[in-house]
Amino acid sequence: MSLTAIKYHRRMGRWEPNAQGRLVQAALELYVERGFEQTTVAEIAKRAGLTERTFFRYFADKREVLFWGAGALQDLLVSTVANGPESEAPIATIRSAIEAAGSVFQERREGALQRQSVITLNPELQERELTKLASLAAAMAGELRRRGVAEPNARLSAEAGIAVLKIAFESWVNDKGEKDLPQLIRETFDRLKAATAG
Amino acid sequence: MSLTAIKYHRRMGRWEPNAQGRLVQAALELYVERGFEQTTVAEIAKRAGLTERTFFRYFADKREVLFWGAGALQDLLVSTVANGPESEAPIATIRSAIEAAGSVFQERREGALQRQSVITLNPELQERELTKLASLAAAMAGELRRRGVAEPNARLSAEAGIAVLKIAFESWVNDKGEKDLPQLIRETFDRLKAATAG
Repeated sequence: MSLTAIKYHRRMGRWEPNAQGRLVQAALELYVERGFEQTTVAEIAKRAGLTERTFFRYFADKREVLFWGAGALQDLLVSTVANGPESEAPIATIRSAIEAAGSVFQERREGALQRQSVITLNPELQERELTKLASLAAAMAGELRRRGVAEPNARLSAEAGIAVLKIAFESWVNDKGEKDLPQLIRETFDRLKAATAG
Repeated sequence: MSLTAIKYHRRMGRWEPNAQGRLVQAALELYVERGFEQTTVAEIAKRAGLTERTFFRYFADKREVLFWGAGALQDLLVSTVANGPESEAPIATIRSAIEAAGSVFQERREGALQRQSVITLNPELQERELTKLASLAAAMAGELRRRGVAEPNARLSAEAGIAVLKIAFESWVNDKGEKDLPQLIRETFDRLKAATAG
């Protein structure tokens, strides 16, 4: 450990291996067992074997435990759009980005399913989730525009992608994550194409 | 006035001609002039020449003034879907419903533009608007299912329709309502079809 790192950890308190991951897992378990409203930060910290102070080092409140991954998800979507071949149709670029997001959810299947079951039961969390999805669409549309895609095509492609993600994710959840989510996403894009063709 | 109506109005207080419309107009003016947060119910009632008691006969709070039309809009969308020809593709039925909604906004152009300018400035109102749009998509998808459209096609068609409404509405607002909204909606559906075809 470097001197800087030692100073950092002295200042921040005792170092705990994978504290953030343990807090997320403990919180999801408690939200599923007792309900989101009924769970306190003290209980989450206790279940994770950590202190409340450690919790607040990572999360502003118990709601943020459910949304802390949104930044990384947006980075993944935007960078996938940014790295798509120039010659590709915008909807194909968006499809690659949504598939990449689907692979991440598939890898973290259990946590993604627990999280969804908590959000489904709470209208305030649902509103927050819709806002997050709208931000993801706006971020992808912005990256498409930067690549020279004109409006309204940039927004239409991005919004279509988020609609596909919502619907594919929902059928994945209804199926308890048994199907392959990237595959469901590809099928749903094909169905959207067929549906809009009329 | 019938005896029942007289009793009703005695119980509810003095009858005011078009009180609801006057309150909506006064509220929108004040929200635009002073901002949503800075406006009180007392000020809205005063501007409309009515009492606070009359305000609360129509609206639970000042936020509801912006969303009271959501029920009528949902009825319009769902009934248009319900009355579409049986032989029609689901996306065509959804298109008719979204066009019908566009006609209503076009007729009430000034109020629709004022309302949008207020919502754009307030994150909490934006969240509420996204939730309302999600409910409208869910209601149309439900009506399509009732007509025998299978999932995920029902939800895909309904979500695509709401995405078109959002995007067409936004460009109508950016253009200060100068263009014809139903026409913009038709063009945006055609662009969605072209975009998803890739």
